[in-house]
Amino acid sequence: MRLRGKKGTREFLEEQKDLVVLDPGAHKGNWRSFFGNGKPIHAELGMGKGQFIATMSVKHPDVNFIGVDRYDELIRRASLKADALSREAFGRRPDNLALVRHNVEYLTDMFADGEVDRIYLNFSDPWPKKKHIRRRLTHPRFLDMYVKVLGGRGEIHFKTDSAELFEYSLNTFSDHGFRLRNITFNLHRDGAHPDHVMTEYEQKFVEQGKPIYRLEALVGGH
Amino acid sequence: MRLRGKKGTREFLEEQKDLVVLDPGAHKGNWRSFFGNGKPIHAELGMGKGQFIATMSVKHPDVNFIGVDRYDELIRRASLKADALSREAFGRRPDNLALVRHNVEYLTDMFADGEVDRIYLNFSDPWPKKKHIRRRLTHPRFLDMYVKVLGGRGEIHFKTDSAELFEYSLNTFSDHGFRLRNITFNLHRDGAHPDHVMTEYEQKFVEQGKPIYRLEALVGGH
Repeated sequence: MRLRGKKGTREFLEEQKDLVVLDPGAHKGNWRSFFGNGKPIHAELGMGKGQFIATMSVKHPDVNFIGVDRYDELIRRASLKADALSREAFGRRPDNLALVRHNVEYLTDMFADGEVDRIYLNFSDPWPKKKHIRRRLTHPRFLDMYVKVLGGRGEIHFKTDSAELFEYSLNTFSDHGFRLRNITFNLHRDGAHPDHVMTEYEQKFVEQGKPIYRLEALVGGH
Repeated sequence: MRLRGKKGTREFLEEQKDLVVLDPGAHKGNWRSFFGNGKPIHAELGMGKGQFIATMSVKHPDVNFIGVDRYDELIRRASLKADALSREAFGRRPDNLALVRHNVEYLTDMFADGEVDRIYLNFSDPWPKKKHIRRRLTHPRFLDMYVKVLGGRGEIHFKTDSAELFEYSLNTFSDHGFRLRNITFNLHRDGAHPDHVMTEYEQKFVEQGKPIYRLEALVGGH
């Protein structure tokens, strides 16, 4: 694969209209049309280089996945990864995945109410300083958006290596009326779970013996 | 104070009918009569040597406290502590405290439904082995009892130095329909809270720089 400069990256992304979405509002309310079916939609917010979402999309053909991140370069890498995994598994381009260049700050610009069934938050930036607390993806202002796009039901699956972010998020989820489930302070305590697809970060942390915190938050309480 | 053998301890306890209750069923359904008023009742299950409950009873004259533990010797120590603190603060015996010798296994033998307003679980035995999991005071079978004596409302305040017990309890409380609040992985992170009365264990752990985990669980969800 030839190396691409910034201009090359943009062109490369624009050529992949089946997989890459550069105008996040284009499919709002119509994601089921984009995928051409009514399968549930699972979105990863802050997908990074895309290992998680690309692997999930290959492992779960019954689900449509949407990976969101802000940077062209991350979308490019994720698209390459997703294409490679899909070709390896099925001999064709991915058909249940969209990679959307978008800022999660404006999540409701890309999803209509109730359009998403599950949200993944993997190793979100912990923003440790108090003055940046509003940027944490589990801040109540984000939880409000998630409840909206999940349509008052659905789940958020959250994992992180940050004890501080995890502690913070247990409180914000709980205070926001989510019901918490499968809370663990060490996801890989008993070895890797075959069901738990790892992100690039996670693989590194697990190799270093660092614990991964994880929880599932159910919208709508009990 | 003279040292007492086992026989002396029992006699010593029997002399304190205003404070010490050796027959746990004697006041079931009538704890408000025992105290002679209708103040809320807060019970500590597994009070140990009683520093927490004795201090709380002096700090909160508006609440009736009941400390429960299984051993005569712990009841004796707690009674001495409570008497000393009350005399120091008010110049008289405690009047808003009962120390009950009882096994928490049979909690519903000492409290009628809805008779308790708040339960404290402080540094409960973590019972780390899987085969002893049923003995953990946050096992679902105990949570059932707590909901019963709390009458489907009220709160449980839980603290521990055990990350394993805390992780376990987050799940059992959450799965049981409690709403969680004020979850912290390090209660004394920013120095000691004046509102947080420490147990004997806790004081030792904090001096050693060990984190204390704490949560509040509200019965009845949201």
